[in-house]
Amino acid sequence: MKPDSKITDISVIAFDADDTLWHNENIYLDTHEKFKQLLRRYHNDEWIQQRLNETEIRNLQHFGYGIKGFTLSMIETAIELSEGRIGGNGIQALIEFGKEMTQAPVELLEGVAETIATLAESYQLMLITKGDLFDQEAKIARSGLGDYFRRIEVVSEKDAETYKRITAKHGIAPERFLMVGNSLKSDILPVIAMGGQAVYIPYRTTWVHERVAENELETKQYVELPHIGLLPDLLG
Amino acid sequence: MKPDSKITDISVIAFDADDTLWHNENIYLDTHEKFKQLLRRYHNDEWIQQRLNETEIRNLQHFGYGIKGFTLSMIETAIELSEGRIGGNGIQALIEFGKEMTQAPVELLEGVAETIATLAESYQLMLITKGDLFDQEAKIARSGLGDYFRRIEVVSEKDAETYKRITAKHGIAPERFLMVGNSLKSDILPVIAMGGQAVYIPYRTTWVHERVAENELETKQYVELPHIGLLPDLLG
Repeated sequence: MKPDSKITDISVIAFDADDTLWHNENIYLDTHEKFKQLLRRYHNDEWIQQRLNETEIRNLQHFGYGIKGFTLSMIETAIELSEGRIGGNGIQALIEFGKEMTQAPVELLEGVAETIATLAESYQLMLITKGDLFDQEAKIARSGLGDYFRRIEVVSEKDAETYKRITAKHGIAPERFLMVGNSLKSDILPVIAMGGQAVYIPYRTTWVHERVAENELETKQYVELPHIGLLPDLLG
Repeated sequence: MKPDSKITDISVIAFDADDTLWHNENIYLDTHEKFKQLLRRYHNDEWIQQRLNETEIRNLQHFGYGIKGFTLSMIETAIELSEGRIGGNGIQALIEFGKEMTQAPVELLEGVAETIATLAESYQLMLITKGDLFDQEAKIARSGLGDYFRRIEVVSEKDAETYKRITAKHGIAPERFLMVGNSLKSDILPVIAMGGQAVYIPYRTTWVHERVAENELETKQYVELPHIGLLPDLLG
């Protein structure tokens, strides 16, 4: 668990975006709260949350990740839990929640702006983010960090194949590629699997779909840092 | 109008996807029909269509292009036009329309499979498509054409800046870059503006948002073909 392998001989550092560079999950959690409030007259919070999670997972095959798919899942769950009584105003409120999410300010995590600026002086930086192209591009633009990244890849899935394809496309040797992210499942394990290096920086919460079983981690080699600000020191 | 400039000295041919390689607009038109049928008890078809178009355009800033945003716009329009009376079953039907759209079979246009296979022998082929990443990747996979394209770019907007960025990223000289597509606004004019070459192959219908004023076209240089099967001959 949490082994302390060294990170060595890196040429390209790729960052995950949501909850690695800027807060994202809190926007979903806030909307979950508003959703539960809207449906509280029909069911208790726990049941509402459980049904929403189930609808989201079931709909990933149709809608993938992102705010629009999440909004459609909220609507579907609300109809189901209210047995259709949610009404036009209720559904419209959910669409407005979705629109507010797309407009939410991009709040950088502590230390991100300085760390990215520092690392950009010595390394080629890249952004690899999963999700909805439209949402992610809007956030990159609003983050003010876009110019630090030589390459930006928005992908629909982050598995070993994805990282292999991206490094090959840009002519990067996997062993000189470092991925930094907050998801063991998406940012760390698949990168190690394809021969890259990885730094895991946990976010304060982890989305239930992204959790990894403990026994998957035991033999893996990666470095865990509590804070992105420690990255320049780690790389020496 | 429709000038006959020659296409010369091409190294990379990039294709638009929707309504250039495979049918797409018919899936939207079919869903428009089902939408009108659902709301026919409240309003006449013309008014329903007009309101849906308006909602779609208004929501582009929030949702961008793609099936999920279109589905949310259908829901919003249905609530508005029925004054909330559409009910849970009606809204759920609209979500199902959206899911069916994401699963619709990918039907290649006539001549596409042969033409792409032929051109792939002599040129580097690329796919540049606007829209929702998740939708577009699913369609490319189902089209059976994915392996012919060395590079695939899903972008949120197709303007001259986008084409400049893509050609620069891949080290392609703009004058040796040929774009083939069915939209003057997205595939032809911006490519010519950044110094590339373009072949326009109109689809039988053109989405109202994609139409271009006649006077924008007068001085532009591109070749118009009635059918993709004529492309290998044009390129000699």
